[in-house]
Amino acid sequence: MKISIKETCNFIKSKNNFTLLTHKSPDGDTLGSSFALKYALEKLGKNVNVFCSDEMPVKFKFLGSLSPINIPSSNFFIVSIDLADTNLLGDHLKFLSQNIDLCIDHHFSNTLYAKKSLIVENAAATAEIIYDVINELGVKIDQQIASCIYTGISTDTGCFKYPNTTAKTHFVAAKMFECGCDFKFINKLMFETKTITQIEIQKFVLNNLETFFDGTCAIIQIPYELKTSLNASDDELDLFASIPREIQGVLVGITLKEKEPKKIKVSVRTDGEINASKICSSLGGGGHHAAAGCFINASLDEAKEKLLEVVKKELNQKENHSDK
Amino acid sequence: MKISIKETCNFIKSKNNFTLLTHKSPDGDTLGSSFALKYALEKLGKNVNVFCSDEMPVKFKFLGSLSPINIPSSNFFIVSIDLADTNLLGDHLKFLSQNIDLCIDHHFSNTLYAKKSLIVENAAATAEIIYDVINELGVKIDQQIASCIYTGISTDTGCFKYPNTTAKTHFVAAKMFECGCDFKFINKLMFETKTITQIEIQKFVLNNLETFFDGTCAIIQIPYELKTSLNASDDELDLFASIPREIQGVLVGITLKEKEPKKIKVSVRTDGEINASKICSSLGGGGHHAAAGCFINASLDEAKEKLLEVVKKELNQKENHSDK
Repeated sequence: MKISIKETCNFIKSKNNFTLLTHKSPDGDTLGSSFALKYALEKLGKNVNVFCSDEMPVKFKFLGSLSPINIPSSNFFIVSIDLADTNLLGDHLKFLSQNIDLCIDHHFSNTLYAKKSLIVENAAATAEIIYDVINELGVKIDQQIASCIYTGISTDTGCFKYPNTTAKTHFVAAKMFECGCDFKFINKLMFETKTITQIEIQKFVLNNLETFFDGTCAIIQIPYELKTSLNASDDELDLFASIPREIQGVLVGITLKEKEPKKIKVSVRTDGEINASKICSSLGGGGHHAAAGCFINASLDEAKEKLLEVVKKELNQKENHSDK
Repeated sequence: MKISIKETCNFIKSKNNFTLLTHKSPDGDTLGSSFALKYALEKLGKNVNVFCSDEMPVKFKFLGSLSPINIPSSNFFIVSIDLADTNLLGDHLKFLSQNIDLCIDHHFSNTLYAKKSLIVENAAATAEIIYDVINELGVKIDQQIASCIYTGISTDTGCFKYPNTTAKTHFVAAKMFECGCDFKFINKLMFETKTITQIEIQKFVLNNLETFFDGTCAIIQIPYELKTSLNASDDELDLFASIPREIQGVLVGITLKEKEPKKIKVSVRTDGEINASKICSSLGGGGHHAAAGCFINASLDEAKEKLLEVVKKELNQKENHSDK
């Protein structure tokens, strides 16, 4: 059942012990939102723990400490934060799938798995909703809470660069600045720090970048070997997936990532003129008009050839269409 | 003489013909601010032209059209926008140096060369000041004006990433979203589009990146030959100067740019622990604690050796200091 912010806060006020659940492979929004809510609830004298199936990534440690996973007693009010589906709870928390009392989320794909759900689909980040919740609870936002909220909204919008950013996003950011959030530290850490491994991946990706069809299609390849030789995380490997579509003149940007030997994850991004979903559907995948994907069981080179064939057809159709 | 926003607007209201001057090598702030003011003044029935010593860069053409430079009649009220000093007027406008009636700027280094100056030093961009001026003039901000102002504030803050960003910056951005600014188009064009030349430069820079002293010092070199062989602009070459200091663990990031054969422009950025100004002073340059520069007349390799010697000394001093 969907509920309002006011109803959400009435529930929260009536409970004393909270178990907050973040999603697996935690990002700045699930963590920032959870810790912001934790600190706000603690100001109201509540007992709150934050849990995650995975370890806290080093760069988010400043937000707070995750609690070791143990089965919460039945007196705990369980809240999932930024979780569209229970399959995102991860291995160590999935036993709670049927017990979630409240979900706070901004994903339009939320499956309404919780007993009650506060979903705000046009929020750029769950942290934007948490800001409203904390205000409704009447808690004053201090520096620590402000830094958590700012981390959520800045990371989920690529530092206000992505199309999901709204007037509200900037308005909440302005408020967090006024509350003293440590934005200089956060921006530097989130958006201006690269590991040597990331530099090596970026080097590899750029050196192996190929363009086709008069520069209208660009492809990067990330071999399985690269991941193992650099001992790189998926996060680090995914950082550079946007490179092909950012090149001027590129209509179709493709990333081929060898997840396992001969198992290629294909990601296709277009500027909207070409239908990415159509390209991927013909190879057994799917997605949206501007962003789609599929898997191909083949070598990187074979996968590339298959894709180029389909892309060529789409580009030709566009050209024929334009000629008319 | 410094004047207030109210005084500025009283002056503006009393005039009918305006000559707006942007700085040479124009950026998003000088252009966005000037065109925002132009469109606002036109709504008040005024006659306004925008001038620049240099050509309009392709990516800013959506803001508006520069007027061909001719000597303005004495009836024109001349306003310089985002210009800290008259030496930024450039070759084709410097003849106006003594005739500037009003300057609107946010640089703390502004030399107060104009008859009257509206300087707001804590504004992240001049466009933030223009927002206040337009409001004070009582002009409703439409979509076109909003896009100009948003271009100014987003480009001068690296899309809200740089430390000069303030609560006010985000507040003005929120307002511009509400006024319908085309932020998706602008963000894509300013922050997510790279030319093939930029990709080639980035590749070169990464492939030639070197680290020293246990990864605490990183150096990139941009040879003169790279500029000529790729026919690259200085803007394109400068885009990647931040790479060395963004690497995790780097205390001193150095960019060596061969402006002409055997004339090396050195830029040193530190995280604040090491004094960049001290490093550059000892080589005849200067600057701030975290950002400084100098010129060295030598080959790239010779310049690198000279710098490494000085950096080594600074790093050792820090270490000795830490040991105590």
